[in-house]
Amino acid sequence: MSLIVQKFGGSSVADAESIKRVARRIVETKQAGHDVVVVVSAMGDTTDELLDLAEQVSPNPPGRELDMLLTSGERISMALLAMAIADLGADARSYTGSQAGLITDSAHGAARIIDVTPGRIQEALAEGAIPIVAGFQGVAQDTKDITTLGRGGSDTTAVALAAALDASVCEIYTDVDGVFSADPRVVAKARQVPVITYEEMLELAAVGAKVLHLRCVEYARRFDLPIHVRSSFSHREGTLVLSPAAIAAKIAEGSVMEHPIISGVAADVNDAKVTVVGVPDKPGEAAAIFKALAGAGINVDMIVQNVSAASTGRTDVTFTCPQGSAKAAMSALEAERATIGFESLLLDDQIAKVSLVGAGMRSHPGVSATFFTALADAGINVEMISTSEIRISVVTRVDEAKRAVQALHTAFGLDADGEAVVYAGSGR
Amino acid sequence: MSLIVQKFGGSSVADAESIKRVARRIVETKQAGHDVVVVVSAMGDTTDELLDLAEQVSPNPPGRELDMLLTSGERISMALLAMAIADLGADARSYTGSQAGLITDSAHGAARIIDVTPGRIQEALAEGAIPIVAGFQGVAQDTKDITTLGRGGSDTTAVALAAALDASVCEIYTDVDGVFSADPRVVAKARQVPVITYEEMLELAAVGAKVLHLRCVEYARRFDLPIHVRSSFSHREGTLVLSPAAIAAKIAEGSVMEHPIISGVAADVNDAKVTVVGVPDKPGEAAAIFKALAGAGINVDMIVQNVSAASTGRTDVTFTCPQGSAKAAMSALEAERATIGFESLLLDDQIAKVSLVGAGMRSHPGVSATFFTALADAGINVEMISTSEIRISVVTRVDEAKRAVQALHTAFGLDADGEAVVYAGSGR
Repeated sequence: MSLIVQKFGGSSVADAESIKRVARRIVETKQAGHDVVVVVSAMGDTTDELLDLAEQVSPNPPGRELDMLLTSGERISMALLAMAIADLGADARSYTGSQAGLITDSAHGAARIIDVTPGRIQEALAEGAIPIVAGFQGVAQDTKDITTLGRGGSDTTAVALAAALDASVCEIYTDVDGVFSADPRVVAKARQVPVITYEEMLELAAVGAKVLHLRCVEYARRFDLPIHVRSSFSHREGTLVLSPAAIAAKIAEGSVMEHPIISGVAADVNDAKVTVVGVPDKPGEAAAIFKALAGAGINVDMIVQNVSAASTGRTDVTFTCPQGSAKAAMSALEAERATIGFESLLLDDQIAKVSLVGAGMRSHPGVSATFFTALADAGINVEMISTSEIRISVVTRVDEAKRAVQALHTAFGLDADGEAVVYAGSGR
Repeated sequence: MSLIVQKFGGSSVADAESIKRVARRIVETKQAGHDVVVVVSAMGDTTDELLDLAEQVSPNPPGRELDMLLTSGERISMALLAMAIADLGADARSYTGSQAGLITDSAHGAARIIDVTPGRIQEALAEGAIPIVAGFQGVAQDTKDITTLGRGGSDTTAVALAAALDASVCEIYTDVDGVFSADPRVVAKARQVPVITYEEMLELAAVGAKVLHLRCVEYARRFDLPIHVRSSFSHREGTLVLSPAAIAAKIAEGSVMEHPIISGVAADVNDAKVTVVGVPDKPGEAAAIFKALAGAGINVDMIVQNVSAASTGRTDVTFTCPQGSAKAAMSALEAERATIGFESLLLDDQIAKVSLVGAGMRSHPGVSATFFTALADAGINVEMISTSEIRISVVTRVDEAKRAVQALHTAFGLDADGEAVVYAGSGR
């Protein structure tokens, strides 16, 4: 008998009918002979409604109290889900994050799990019950105050519990069938990816694919825990997130056909581009810029420095950061203007970051050539470039992002019913 | 510096504006030099809304899960109240019943407080903070599951905390100015009672006055803790609930004028009357009836047994119980029909219980005479009678209850601007 952790998001438990449907699904899994632990998010828009209430009361509420408020959301959904399961004749018991042993640091609103002590969950399992655990929340080790893990934190709760309980798989139920090669709203021919590595999933999550929470994937990779992303609205197989070795084993046993070279294409339109114009081209200038940004807590993503003009001895430094941080970035730099000695600042929020992710890039030369040829053929101008071992990202105009994603999706043979791409011989 | 426990009910924190108003009031008390501990109920109709949700999911939800669900209500109101207080520059911290040390038995939905260990509340007070505690809830000593104290339980939370913290007073804030001599919606000339004993308050609570939860008054009496019932919408003095000795001391020091002979008149229209017709008049028959009712968990209030008819050797036994239990009472009796040997059952839910309460009855003869004369003069028929040391209750037709209350209120000189009643010389 294996143990399965099933996580249901807010859209899967949005109302009484949905809760009953999810309850039936959980009981089916139990009746199929598995032990089941369920992790559940707050119903539908509950979290946003609670944030609205907080805003009406205080413009700047203390993090401790905001966490206390928001954690009432899962308390409601988990109790209702336990009731619905009980109504089907099974024994279900709900547990808060604190009761389930989700021990965190005390960073309210973005707490990190530092230990999982699921003694009560194990007791409930031993008695044949189905434990229903509140996602997204925990209790601080030092202050004993209630904490939250930040948006999407329920995925992390599920994976952390699955790891602590040595579950065979963590099933993340959502409103789509799994991970796709591109956003189906952008690329009609996007196809579902059957398997993907943790690394690819991390890169995709980092560049705008919203299926899984970044931290949850990191956690799963650390414990080599299989994640199964699937729909709560169908019984189809979803996407398995695994280690490369686990994927190789699945291919060997024949349960998976192949691990595609390219997993997907994504566009992120939430970044802005800041250019620091006329920076004296001497050692330490870039350091001064990024020290100022780090001091203001700005998350810098891509960085480009031009070749300096010989006549002036000055250069331009361009970087991207989340649009929400762009104004803070400008202020932080402006405050250091005299020290850094730059001439001016330019802000551009009409950009997109278009990324191609695939573990096969490592071993297949020519991916870069295909990538840039596809964009050139589509007449799309590339403003910045950055790469990792398994990702190529470029900055384009925001209104060209959709076309760029479509062109890349086709060029790499990802279109459903399309043919496999043939790579040119040159290195990337 | 004294410690004051302030309890705010759902109507006092029904929306963001009310919460901010209550926050200002709490901060005023703190600024006046008192330590303050706040107990708060769920916002407005939250509890009813959560019960609605539960009903949509399951017709008969487990008590453990219902308690988990309902306790999210105070979690929301207390966090919002703490935010509103923080917004005024004071340090407020919210605590669940479990965090505040409200230890109960495990009777879900109607748990009893068996211990209060408010260590975290005392720490917060020592640091100058205002603790905001969730009313109505606790944690079971044996199972560690979340429990609720039943409707109105927040009053009990407040009194229990006040007793454990050795507070000087427990202020219960509500939407009226205090305890009245009758329901102001029934008697326009009802007047606010300045002081009342625990015993009188218990009798009034038991006969339908809804100001204070019965168990809260019992708790306060046990610890001789002063309760101050007052309005959260005004700064007027409300009603002090005290021991007779404390009232005597207040009269001696001149802060209270006098303790009136009669505290109030109340009507309860939530009872039903069941008559067991043709019960054999022999020893053990009444016992068999009330054993059957006790076995079904029926709370029997008034009981009358007629003189038996000599010709038949049979009698009728009539009792009252809450309307909600009447059908269960009928079924329980019907199941024992052969054993008890009665002829038939009659159910009458068109009744009211009209009660007069006053500690002065003990020492002032003639109260009964005035009581029954007033009802007779008003042409109201009395169907059943029961009395305690400080209460007289009668059953009337439900549509005559209002007139009965008005007649008694006037007859005992309770009308505001009215004259004191003159008692006839005979004993009651």
